[in-house]
Amino acid sequence: MKAPGCPLCEEAGGTVVFQGDCFRVVRAAEPGLPAFYRLIWTAHFREFSDLAADDRHFCIDAVACIEEALRQHLDPVKVNLATLGNAVPHLHWHVVARFEWDSHFPGAPWAVAQRKVAPEAQARIEGLLPSLEADIAARLAVLTGNRTAT
Amino acid sequence: MKAPGCPLCEEAGGTVVFQGDCFRVVRAAEPGLPAFYRLIWTAHFREFSDLAADDRHFCIDAVACIEEALRQHLDPVKVNLATLGNAVPHLHWHVVARFEWDSHFPGAPWAVAQRKVAPEAQARIEGLLPSLEADIAARLAVLTGNRTAT
Repeated sequence: MKAPGCPLCEEAGGTVVFQGDCFRVVRAAEPGLPAFYRLIWTAHFREFSDLAADDRHFCIDAVACIEEALRQHLDPVKVNLATLGNAVPHLHWHVVARFEWDSHFPGAPWAVAQRKVAPEAQARIEGLLPSLEADIAARLAVLTGNRTAT
Repeated sequence: MKAPGCPLCEEAGGTVVFQGDCFRVVRAAEPGLPAFYRLIWTAHFREFSDLAADDRHFCIDAVACIEEALRQHLDPVKVNLATLGNAVPHLHWHVVARFEWDSHFPGAPWAVAQRKVAPEAQARIEGLLPSLEADIAARLAVLTGNRTAT
């Protein structure tokens, strides 16, 4: 179920961390926000409430799974979750680890940037991303496998 | 389970549309975004993933319920969902009906405003809010009742 001209139907939309049948997870390149992930639903739905209830639960369990991995690996001060889609109305969830030193804190990732990030802070988080992303993929493989098994 | 000094533990946080045991829904006064609602979880949890899985599903079903009511009554071009909590880390979900003429479209509600809203467009939506909010309350009463019954 693809929509002609939709960038999230046609391209990955970032560095792929996990690829399942129903959704993929990508890392977005957002300067100043070094742990910015997106869960992109495979089928072209516009709104979250377009999903059937069991797909909504599966989708939000996956979002919570990513959040838990971010918390465990990065110890962020907060995690931000959002599905907006005003510019690209193909269902995707932003899952963003926030730090007091990041470019936008305490503002939203879509607000005006408040500061330039210190390179060493950014580099410290970037160094943790490979093991974080391996763990995200492992957790989502279990979640996806459990669903297929039921 | 309250946290000392937390504004969402101490105050409603907007005009109450629905009050349940686990959460309330309020209309926020956000100029230029006339249908901006918040679901505020009653207990003071910081992150969405702090909720048990069945509470997460209940919470997101309620968010989807509000979204469906917004779509049915207001025919928005998009609905935006987010839980941020950088400033007030007490679990709450923003549920916002978006229109091409609103103050921030296609930007996020937390981005820089792009325009002043025409008073007649704002007034037209405001006129629809009483029946919308009665419907949100009715739908959430059913959702909450179904849960209590199981």
